[in-house]
Amino acid sequence: MGEDKEPMEEVEVLLATSNPGKVKEINAILAPYGIRVKLPEEKVEVEEKGTTFLENAYLKAKAYWERFRLPTVADDSGLVVEALGGYPGIYSSRFYSIDFGGIEEGYTPDEANIRKVLRLLEGKENRRAKFVACALFYDGGEGLFAFGECKGEITLKPEGEGGFGYDPVFRPDGYEVTMAQLSAEEKNRISHRGKAFRRLARLIRRVYREPSPSP
Amino acid sequence: MGEDKEPMEEVEVLLATSNPGKVKEINAILAPYGIRVKLPEEKVEVEEKGTTFLENAYLKAKAYWERFRLPTVADDSGLVVEALGGYPGIYSSRFYSIDFGGIEEGYTPDEANIRKVLRLLEGKENRRAKFVACALFYDGGEGLFAFGECKGEITLKPEGEGGFGYDPVFRPDGYEVTMAQLSAEEKNRISHRGKAFRRLARLIRRVYREPSPSP
Repeated sequence: MGEDKEPMEEVEVLLATSNPGKVKEINAILAPYGIRVKLPEEKVEVEEKGTTFLENAYLKAKAYWERFRLPTVADDSGLVVEALGGYPGIYSSRFYSIDFGGIEEGYTPDEANIRKVLRLLEGKENRRAKFVACALFYDGGEGLFAFGECKGEITLKPEGEGGFGYDPVFRPDGYEVTMAQLSAEEKNRISHRGKAFRRLARLIRRVYREPSPSP
Repeated sequence: MGEDKEPMEEVEVLLATSNPGKVKEINAILAPYGIRVKLPEEKVEVEEKGTTFLENAYLKAKAYWERFRLPTVADDSGLVVEALGGYPGIYSSRFYSIDFGGIEEGYTPDEANIRKVLRLLEGKENRRAKFVACALFYDGGEGLFAFGECKGEITLKPEGEGGFGYDPVFRPDGYEVTMAQLSAEEKNRISHRGKAFRRLARLIRRVYREPSPSP
């Protein structure tokens, strides 16, 4: 079977988000694969009631697909801390507000989440953690998905101004600084989300290259 | 981009099941696509704690993949009854034993499930229902999935000896008989599981045909 020498046709898909910054971030990752994501015309409310990253990514993609009937990409991600039995996990963005470990009040969500993780890890030897992302492509009843991980440790205090979420307290393996101290390019190169989306992009290119062989 | 004229290489994958009958059934569906599923060397216990068919199929495939480190196919399916708000859904195989609608005792699971659905539909005009299946391929951190549906109605009483589960009380649209009165070939042709696996097979063939294009 010969290699495909023709230039790739660009594939355009919806990104299940209402955040233009996220569209930009994902496009920077996907551009080399000839895939472009676009911002939906309006926000779709999605109840993320799944129990895993895969499920939540699927629920988002499906909700946008059902509203716009266009191939849609979505993702879900979170921080998995060993000594906390995998928490905050799927609760990462609202960890401060859930019962597990006590509610943290009077801060922005990002601050409160970080305070809670640092508090729960106080005095613990094991500060191993990983960011996990699931990126998913859905096109009406069928789809593709890929996971990406970034392993590291929770630092003793927040450092750095970049990124968002838990980035200021996450030091990736092989680095002396936190995720929040990396450039956007460097972060995309090593991040869970970058890995998951590049992996998904390779699957999309394989599936969308040419018509399916029929039996 | 030209058509691929070379014969397809056979793809062999694990089927996340301990049921040799199921291996035979799925192989009959997949043979035209050059895909063969095989029975795992031993059973892996999987807790189906997902909230959707996709999630349960993923949990099964992942559990077998983690045990054998081989590309794995799994499925999950169920009966979705309109007048019961989508129940039995993901609870289809153990519907008789869950609180919703009252527990049904003293019968085989298949019998008890059917008795419960018929009891809950007594006196209801709307007997519309559909079988839904999700077939999923997983290969260590990435995968493909496809859904299949078969729409129809719940009959007033069981008829037919073929199939299993709710087949004796499900009359597919366009048929005068129940799923349990169809031949295995005819059932595969129209069933939710047949549709989902054929759709998944087309995705697998696209992804596994040749090396991925790199950016």
